[in-house]
Formats: sequence, C-alpha cells, structure tokens
Amino acid sequence: MTGRRLKHWGWGFEDQAPSATVLAEAAAGIRERFGFGGEVRAAMPLEEVEVRAPRLRRPDAFGDLFTDEKYERVSRALGKAYRDIVRGHRGEFEHPPDLVALPRDCSEVETVLSWAEAEGAAVVPFGGGTSVVGGVEGRLGDRPVVTMDLRRLDRLVEVDPASLAARIEAGATGPRLEEQLREHGLTMRCFPQSFEYATLGGWIATRAGGHFATKETHVDDLVESVRAVTPRGTWESRRLPGSGAGPSPDRLLLGSEGILGAIVEAWVRVRPRPEWKAAATVRFERFADACEAVREIVQAGLDPANCRLLEAVEAEMTGAGDGTSHLLLLAFESAHHPMEAQLRLAIEAAESHGGAADAPRVSGPSAVDRPIDGEMQTAADWWRGAFLLAPYLRDTFVSCGVLSETFETAITWDRLEEFHANVMETTRRAVAEVSGAPREGRGAPLVTCRFTHAYPDGVAPYFTVLAPAIRGGEVEQWDEIKAAVSEELMEGGGTITHHHAVGRDHRPWYDRQRPAPFAAALRAAKAELDPAAILNPGVLLDP
Amino acid sequence: MTGRRLKHWGWGFEDQAPSATVLAEAAAGIRERFGFGGEVRAAMPLEEVEVRAPRLRRPDAFGDLFTDEKYERVSRALGKAYRDIVRGHRGEFEHPPDLVALPRDCSEVETVLSWAEAEGAAVVPFGGGTSVVGGVEGRLGDRPVVTMDLRRLDRLVEVDPASLAARIEAGATGPRLEEQLREHGLTMRCFPQSFEYATLGGWIATRAGGHFATKETHVDDLVESVRAVTPRGTWESRRLPGSGAGPSPDRLLLGSEGILGAIVEAWVRVRPRPEWKAAATVRFERFADACEAVREIVQAGLDPANCRLLEAVEAEMTGAGDGTSHLLLLAFESAHHPMEAQLRLAIEAAESHGGAADAPRVSGPSAVDRPIDGEMQTAADWWRGAFLLAPYLRDTFVSCGVLSETFETAITWDRLEEFHANVMETTRRAVAEVSGAPREGRGAPLVTCRFTHAYPDGVAPYFTVLAPAIRGGEVEQWDEIKAAVSEELMEGGGTITHHHAVGRDHRPWYDRQRPAPFAAALRAAKAELDPAAILNPGVLLDP
Repeated sequence: MTGRRLKHWGWGFEDQAPSATVLAEAAAGIRERFGFGGEVRAAMPLEEVEVRAPRLRRPDAFGDLFTDEKYERVSRALGKAYRDIVRGHRGEFEHPPDLVALPRDCSEVETVLSWAEAEGAAVVPFGGGTSVVGGVEGRLGDRPVVTMDLRRLDRLVEVDPASLAARIEAGATGPRLEEQLREHGLTMRCFPQSFEYATLGGWIATRAGGHFATKETHVDDLVESVRAVTPRGTWESRRLPGSGAGPSPDRLLLGSEGILGAIVEAWVRVRPRPEWKAAATVRFERFADACEAVREIVQAGLDPANCRLLEAVEAEMTGAGDGTSHLLLLAFESAHHPMEAQLRLAIEAAESHGGAADAPRVSGPSAVDRPIDGEMQTAADWWRGAFLLAPYLRDTFVSCGVLSETFETAITWDRLEEFHANVMETTRRAVAEVSGAPREGRGAPLVTCRFTHAYPDGVAPYFTVLAPAIRGGEVEQWDEIKAAVSEELMEGGGTITHHHAVGRDHRPWYDRQRPAPFAAALRAAKAELDPAAILNPGVLLDP
Repeated sequence: MTGRRLKHWGWGFEDQAPSATVLAEAAAGIRERFGFGGEVRAAMPLEEVEVRAPRLRRPDAFGDLFTDEKYERVSRALGKAYRDIVRGHRGEFEHPPDLVALPRDCSEVETVLSWAEAEGAAVVPFGGGTSVVGGVEGRLGDRPVVTMDLRRLDRLVEVDPASLAARIEAGATGPRLEEQLREHGLTMRCFPQSFEYATLGGWIATRAGGHFATKETHVDDLVESVRAVTPRGTWESRRLPGSGAGPSPDRLLLGSEGILGAIVEAWVRVRPRPEWKAAATVRFERFADACEAVREIVQAGLDPANCRLLEAVEAEMTGAGDGTSHLLLLAFESAHHPMEAQLRLAIEAAESHGGAADAPRVSGPSAVDRPIDGEMQTAADWWRGAFLLAPYLRDTFVSCGVLSETFETAITWDRLEEFHANVMETTRRAVAEVSGAPREGRGAPLVTCRFTHAYPDGVAPYFTVLAPAIRGGEVEQWDEIKAAVSEELMEGGGTITHHHAVGRDHRPWYDRQRPAPFAAALRAAKAELDPAAILNPGVLLDP
C-alpha cells in the first residue's frame, strides 16, 4: 500500500527487522539475563516459503480488487500471537488465504461478500492482522478463503467539532487516524498495544482495550455509531449520544469479530488533545497494599487516565523499576483544567495504603509534549516505551529460542487475592513442567503480572510469560501451558479475555463462559444475516 | 402483597388518591393557572369496571401461583402513560391479562413459562407496571395473556462489599432495594421518576435512566451480570468488572423488554452513600448560552451527578424558578472526598457562558442528609420534589380534563439548536391544532423542555405538554400529537426514546430507527429462544 512493506511474519515493517549481528548480540544478552534461550535461528525468507496454490481463481472482472500474490497472501495468513510468530518464523503458513481482497469503498466490500458467497468461499475481515487469538487465520479445511483487508478505507470522512465526534473509515490504523484528527486539534486516544498497525474496525470488532486504565477502558465507550456491511444488507446505527431504544445495535457489533458483518466505518467520540497532565509513580513493598490502593482510587471515582500497577519483577523487566518494589503508575489528563488536585487525592489514597509517591510531575499548556519515543525520564516513560516495543522484542525472542507470550483476564475485587495467587501458581507450574525448566533459580521461567485496567468492581490482570522454548515444539508447548492457565481462569471466575478477543484460540473457554441461551441467540442472528456462513467461520461460533 | 394496595388505575397507592374536595380545589386552581381544564370527572370505581372473563382457567396444581382475581387483573392491564391513565380513569380495560402469575422464585418463573407455552398463552413480564409505552399491555387479540408479576422476588440476596456489588432479585422496587442496601451502608442510586414503584428487572429490561445526569446515565452501566429465564433455559452471565469476550450478553438483555427472557436477578454496582455534596443553581438569560455551558461542563469530563437544565417556563411550572431565567442544576457527590473544587470548575465554565450562580451549597459527613420530602430550600429541592410528584399530579390532571404527557429523545450537540427549535415548534403547532386551542395567550397549551442527561457528544431533551383534554377523545388526541412529534424526532436525527423504552407505542418509529439487519438478528434470536413467541409479543418486534 505504501513503499514500506510489513514483515511477512512477526511485528512491524520489513526494514525494522534486526540484522544478524544485532540478533547475535541480543541472543547473548538474553542468555546472560534469563539463563535460557540464546541460540539464534534465522526466520525463513519469504522466497523459501512454500505456500499452497490458491484454490480460487482471481476474478478478472474487478480490476485489482483481488490479488493472489504470494506476499499478500502469506503476510495475512497468521495473526500475531506467539504461536503465529513461531510458525511464521519457521515459514509454516498452513492456512494462507486463497485470495486477498483490498476494497476501496463499501460497494467493493459488498462485491467481495457477494462474489465469495457465490464461490462458496469464506471471508476473513482483516485490519492490522494483530489478532493474538487466531481471529484472522482461516483454518477451514477444504473451504477456500478470501481475506478482506480493509486498510484502503482509511480516511477521516467527517468531523463534528461541536459534539467531539468523527466519522472514520474502519481501515484507518492508529497513527493514520490520529494524524488526520490532529489536523483538527483532536485525538481519539485509543492506544492499545497494537496501536501502530491495528485499525479502528479491528478495535471495534474485538472490543479493544485502549489508553484509559479506568472509565472508558474499551473502545466500546468511544463508539457513537457503526456501519457494517452484512451479506443481507448494510447495518448502520444512528449517531446518538445515548439511547434506550431496544438493545443497543452497536453493542452487538462490538465484539462480533467479523462474524455478523464487515465493519466499514464508525462515528467515534474524540477529544481535544490534553493540555494539562499530572502524573506520579507510587512504590509499594506489599502487592496486596498496592491492590487496595488501586481499589480505593477507582472506587473513589477519581478516574485516572493511567492507573497501571506493575509487580516488582514486571517493573524490573520493563526497565520501569529496579525490582525492589511494586509500581503504581498514576496519571491524570485534561484538555480543560489542571489535574494536580485529582492526582493529589489519588496519591493520598495510595499513601494511606503504605505507598511512597515520587514527586508529582505536572505540566500545563505551555509544556512541550514529549513524544512516545523521546527521552525516558520516569517509570511511566520506561513502561510506555517497553509497552510499545514488546511486540517487536518478541520477534527477537522467537529467533533466540525464548517462549514469550501474554494472557489477560478480569476479576472482581472480592476474588482477586486468591485468584491472582492461583493463576500465578498454576502458570509457574505449567510453564516449568511443560518446558522442562527449573521452577526457581537461574534458568527458571519468568511469570509476571500487571493490572492494565481498573474498575470500581474489579481489575484486569495481565500476565507475561518468558521461558525456554522447545525448539520445533513451540506451538504445542504454549498450547499446553495456555490450556492449564485458561482452566484456572475459568475455575476462578475470571473472563477468558478482557481485551484480547476470542478468535479461534479462546473458543473452548469462551464457549463455557458465555450463557448458553446467548450463544444460541448469536448463532441464530448469524444464520439470519449470513446464511451461507461466509463471514469468519469458526470465530465465536462453530464454522 | 402488603396491606397497602396500589390504585387500580393511575399512580401510587389507593390511600393516596385525592378526596373529592381536594380534587375540586385542584380543578379550580388548574383553571386559574392554565386557563383550561377544571371540570372534575370522577374515576370509575373498581366495582363498576366491567372486565372480560378470563380466557384461561386458573390451574389448580400450583397453589396461589396464578390468580384470576379482578383487582389483580385490572391493576395490571395498563401501564402509566397518559393514554393509560385516561383509559383507567374511565374504567376501560380492553386487554386485561386473563391470569396474573406471582412467582416466588426462578423455578416458579419456569413453571409459568412452560405452563403458558403449553396453553398457547402469551406472558407479559411485569415489574412496577410503570411503562409509559404500552410495554405491559397485552394487546394480542384472541390470544390469552398471563401477566407475570415478579414483585415477590424482591430480596437482596448477597452483598460483595469489596467490589461494591450486590445481587438483587429483579422484583425489588427502588425503595425495597435501597432499604436493604442501606443496612450495608450502600446505595444503588438509580432514581428514575418511577423509583417508588418500578423494579430492578424493569429498569434493566427497559434501560432505565437513573439518578446520574452524566457518565452512568442508564442502568446499563450499573449492571455487572444478569440472570434471566428464557423458554429455552437460564441465561446467566458471569460477574465480571469488564470483559472483551464476544459481544456483551448483558447488553442484549438490557433493553430487551421481556421478549427474550424474564429477568429474575442481577448483580449491580452499588456504592457507599455519598457523604460530600456540592451543589449550585446557575441562572441564564439565554437558553443557547445555557446549552453551551452544559456542553463545556460535560466535555471537560467534570461528570456532575446532577446537570439538569430547565427552560424558564419549565422551571416556573415545577416551582424551581420564577420563569425569568433558565436554570442549570449542578451537583457533585462523593463518598470519598469533598467535591467543592469540581463544583467550582463547573460554575466557572457556566459563568464563562453568561450564567449567574447562586452561592454553592456544600455539605460534608457531619451534615444531616435532607430527606426528599423534607423542607424545600433550593431550586434543586423544588425540582426534585416536583419530579417525584409529577406522576401523582397527572392523575389529578386527568380527572380535571387536562392532557398531561411527556416525551424525550437524545441528539448530538451539532444538531441540537435546530432540532430543539423544530421539535418545540412542531409540538406547539400539533398540540394547539389537535386540541383546538389558541397557540398563545390565556388558555394556550404549555410545551416545556428540560435536559435530563448530558454527554460529551450530546444531550437528552425531555418535553412536557399540558393542554386542554378533548373529553372522551383523549387517546386519539394524544396519539395524533405523538405521531407528529415522533416524525419530527426521527426527521431531526434523534432517538424515539432515550430512557422511556419502546414497548408497543414507539414501534412505528423504532422500526425505522434501528438498522434493518439488527432487527433481523433480534427476530432470529427471539425465534431461537422463544419459538412459541410467548414472551411479550408485539414489543420491539411484531407478535
């Protein structure tokens, strides 16, 4: 689409891949640091990848709407989970789409759906391809697959400055939509980890978790109306600030992961760029105290934009801390008024639970906004940098024989302590056992936790696992760990996902989690709108 | 259920009905004040009401689960819209339920559904019966109807003080659930106008608008999980503070108005009773300035608990003002910290748009909480009193020949000014024409407006109409006005309802408002869960 091409496997652009020298240095560093990994294997170059011939003939009638070009197919064959990166690295693309469609407008989206329906093909709607749950991998046996990439629909169509809302096409990536909003002095402030590559439509389809750690935690809250193309017509809701007219149509599309329709555009709530910021880092000796601090802050209705709690080990791993204390990153922001008073209330609450806050950092309209890749001055800066770099780093881990994956959930406060302990224990045990690694000491796997989002009634814990990879058996290794962990999440009353979506990989646990009559209702709704079952079969529901 | 019986028509308990003397005095006052109405007609006593014989035989097998007693049937035959009150006053109960079921638990709810399905009867789930949209009136021709009143399920089952959540049965009325929560020092703070009589299940089924004018405007935001009994099994979601696992099951039940299942209980988010309050009234000469003030306050993220804007005439009518200025009622509340600073920011914003604030009223933990029926000291007190009294007063209006009804909507800020002007103009014209009344001067109908809820991207205008009733033709009179008004709401881009639900009366406009594929999906979901179409047929979807 642009001169710069995304890697055919892994995270980011082709020109961002580390050189062999850098990889070798990284491998030594990893070995030194963790006591495992360190043996570099090169990724299979695209030229050497063998990919199944397309089972669909590219139709001549539609110009360049469809392509069967190898790079286009391979680069959309997998998502970005660890199990995807590993397979891509090895050059194993078992389920490449037969064709890739690149529609430019709604009418071309309709064309793709009707052509696929006539051909008996499935259609996988595709945004940034950053799914970590198998959401874009068409594992459909003999059924041909068209992956419909919506990234050509990337325009800011209309701005309503009075209502602070903008109509944006679904294929706009985070940077693309922010760049267009910036011209109007506005920002959406939806910054999931996938921000650089993922698209608005993908965020809506998967209920992405964004920038805000409290209050507007999911993109759900930023959506004013949605337009989706279904095989049975266009689904377009009215732009309304609030409504009580029947169940919300938007809330049925939010999280529908492409099975009901292809989201083509949305009106989203935007805001002026924040001018006033107030932030502080609070250190805790005891994790339980830090949890109580977070609970008090959110239950007080203070609604900080950032309220992320990093366990000591996680803080150290990301460079945000030295590993001696747990860190609570607090930040308030406003385009309207100073936020220092709110920060002070939050700090007071944190200190009443034994926290020690560093000096508040307060900035107003005159301050220069530090870019995210700028100088790292604070724990929050470090953490933010690490947050965006993590997916790049994972490619390196995979090359160096390190298993690197995350999983996340949400749980009410009453269950948190036991739940957290059980999940940590189960994960540590499963990772060590499955990986044949020691549980403690040098060479032991790392399992760390942070809280990404906080609510008056609970919190969203996010876990990171680093372990020695079983070379050649990485997928099975992780799948076994993931199954053990997911059982624990279900048993403990959590959700199988707070913001990573369901896709195909979370299905066994999602199916148990959702109410059976809701599953039946969803199945019936899909059968009605998509009777030929062309839309992303296998996701959320059986194909 | 208790010693006190609800009126068989109209609002409140039998013992709250005004005496003939009081009615006569009220009639004179109304005539004096408005220049119309004033001729008292007595309501038809229950003894004189003629009601169709039940078309279902009360089954003997289930003890007192079903009743065919006249009072029980008549008092659940209508909702509480003006067109309901008028008909009830005249003794016209065209569609009484054939039986009333009063289940005590989930298993009895299942019994009612399966018995009704076997009998070919429809089931109308019923809470407080305060629907103003025909949601509880089984207008089903020859099909027999069982109205299932859930008010015996009224317990607080469980409290989770750590997560500030409570499990409450769906039949608990506002006072009943607040009284039980109070024993734990907690409150739900969901105070719709129907608070005294409506039930938690009814609020969830209709997406009721509650206490909070901003942020948590609908009960949707207070729901953590829901349990509903469907004809095809129990629908129960997990208690989660947040989740991204597929479309939200709860959000499909919220607003489902009883067509998918009978809501039997929910975990809701509660909070400690607020200790700190800060409130002020701001006066505006120009309505447009007041709108801009509200817009700035909500877009600034100040999130006041109260942020209601009353047009001058409405303020006068409710006793909150003298009619010379528009009033903005602002209030902040917290159980955690003083709210004076937030109030000052909101006042500053309001004053920057030409508002004049009275002295802030600030109270802390030591202050005595004024009961809602206590001394009226401020505009907000007056307005709150009038808000809860309005439905009682309407019975009196009906007795005295005054048409008294409200309607409401929501609209984005960019369209507000023109929308508000058009709706006011259309309503004034329709009311005058249909009622044969002058448009101005003595005896002219009153059409007034307030904003009940405010959002960063728009506002929810609420309109009140008072006009001379066409005696004997009240229903047709209002239906004609309502149709004209609803067309204007649709044309102008609003919603047919922000928090009054759809029921049967809003269907023509709701059907146009919702996306067609969503309607098809909802129809398919219902057919799957309720294949015999027993649940509230005609509501949201055709019977």
